[in-house]
Amino acid sequence: MKYLITGISGFVGAHIVRQLLPQGHTVIGVDLAMPVGLPKAVVSYQMSLMDAVALKDVIVRVRPDRIIHLASASSVGYSWEKPVDCFVNNTNIFLNLVEAVRSSDIKCRILSVGSSEEYGPVAPTDVPLKEERPSDPMSPYAVARVAQEHLSKVYARGYGLDIVCTRSFNHLGAGQTDRFVISSFVRQAVEVSKGLRPKITCGSLDIVRDFVDVRDVVRAYEMVLDKGISGEIYNVCSGRGVSLREVLEVICRKVGIPFEFTQDAHLIRPIDNPVIVGSNEKLMKLGFALSYDLEHAIDDLVSWWKTKI
Amino acid sequence: MKYLITGISGFVGAHIVRQLLPQGHTVIGVDLAMPVGLPKAVVSYQMSLMDAVALKDVIVRVRPDRIIHLASASSVGYSWEKPVDCFVNNTNIFLNLVEAVRSSDIKCRILSVGSSEEYGPVAPTDVPLKEERPSDPMSPYAVARVAQEHLSKVYARGYGLDIVCTRSFNHLGAGQTDRFVISSFVRQAVEVSKGLRPKITCGSLDIVRDFVDVRDVVRAYEMVLDKGISGEIYNVCSGRGVSLREVLEVICRKVGIPFEFTQDAHLIRPIDNPVIVGSNEKLMKLGFALSYDLEHAIDDLVSWWKTKI
Repeated sequence: MKYLITGISGFVGAHIVRQLLPQGHTVIGVDLAMPVGLPKAVVSYQMSLMDAVALKDVIVRVRPDRIIHLASASSVGYSWEKPVDCFVNNTNIFLNLVEAVRSSDIKCRILSVGSSEEYGPVAPTDVPLKEERPSDPMSPYAVARVAQEHLSKVYARGYGLDIVCTRSFNHLGAGQTDRFVISSFVRQAVEVSKGLRPKITCGSLDIVRDFVDVRDVVRAYEMVLDKGISGEIYNVCSGRGVSLREVLEVICRKVGIPFEFTQDAHLIRPIDNPVIVGSNEKLMKLGFALSYDLEHAIDDLVSWWKTKI
Repeated sequence: MKYLITGISGFVGAHIVRQLLPQGHTVIGVDLAMPVGLPKAVVSYQMSLMDAVALKDVIVRVRPDRIIHLASASSVGYSWEKPVDCFVNNTNIFLNLVEAVRSSDIKCRILSVGSSEEYGPVAPTDVPLKEERPSDPMSPYAVARVAQEHLSKVYARGYGLDIVCTRSFNHLGAGQTDRFVISSFVRQAVEVSKGLRPKITCGSLDIVRDFVDVRDVVRAYEMVLDKGISGEIYNVCSGRGVSLREVLEVICRKVGIPFEFTQDAHLIRPIDNPVIVGSNEKLMKLGFALSYDLEHAIDDLVSWWKTKI
């Protein structure tokens, strides 16, 4: 099958390539950044998805069977600093993508990747979060993701496009930047183990999140593309809540350093959900099963950071 | 007080001006189109709200106390034909507006006008629709309106902007284009009365809507600006459902022609809500009361079309 991957140069893009190529699929990528380190079999176009004409050109030339839309300005923090940039680089690029498909005669299935941030403020009684719970976005990023999901439904129901959606929870794995909390912990732990810093610095360790190994995330994406129903939304999550304290303990054990840390008040967000855990029941009903637990995921991240430091 | 009105050249804009000027307020307008027939006291800027720099220049120069954001590509039908245009000319222009206010030091209250379309498919048990019912947008236009409302909440809660929102139901009154159903009925009825056409042509007359006189709409907007709570949403509606059949009967009686019509299958939308009626309880709690009933509204529209034909 022929896959077009937007945002192929990112963390998840690399794992998608590793998932799809060995199965004999053709993989074509587009990204703002020139992809580094991808196998030669992957053809990539360097372009902005804000350029609707160029995007349509690529889609019409490639004629993909499937599009996995990973491209996104995906940081909540950045979205507060640059709300317009965030909105345009999420919702408007998605709109350009679906419009390019609609206005050509290409029959392809599109995966629209969303976020658990769409749920907004989560009460303890709301977890595990199910897909039917109304969204209540509380950051510019979350607003953009909800709009993308609403557009997916409208393009699926109204124009007959074949679009399946996810709400993806926190993922982790090799290649993840240390702007994300777990990758930052692992990096710091490896640095402590090499005597490069005295202790790990962190924010609140009490918050509970639902972490998925990125290798399971890309397997789930393929499963949703294989078996998902057009216009439907699927949580991609482990279904299990883990506190950051628990995660940090595992990391320290894996790296072989004492469980010690310094808390920095600046790293504690003024408003944050104490607990976010998703239900993956709907995904499981498609036939999906997780292959990697938290220990596996952290092993992979530790090995990767060890090669970097 | 100093008001800035976006989309001042439109149907509602003219009524806002008529509402505000006699109270001694200063009214400044911006619009894509050059306003025609506005009183000389109203200064207008002709510009696109997509031009973020020009928009901010105007806002900084004017330093309004209140902004009423009427500018919108507000046709559901058009949004299906030109989804990207519709989205950009609703959500992105609103984003430019709130970003201009956020990035300057201007303290002003903004009225974000939304639509009953945001509710989406409405079951008979859902009416009268209350503001807390989850939105489920089913057209590109409705998606754009929901995104605008979500952005309003995020800018209000996250950046402390003072924004109040409405979900406005069908309005009618003098100056309304015949792209809207009731204005089209009145125009046709006046034409029948003058022997310019044999009969009124219409689609389904069974659908039930909640109609508000535009003069009450602009009074409600002022009330929401006076007393509404920042970040909150207020339905602007009559709270009463009326079938198009009932409306057409009133129109024929007012114009003095027999109640006769031809139904055109092309005018019947394939998917449409049979009944949309809102609850105006929240608006009433601010101290609002309707001043014009359907008969008044139709009188006004009939008089206006009589001057045109």
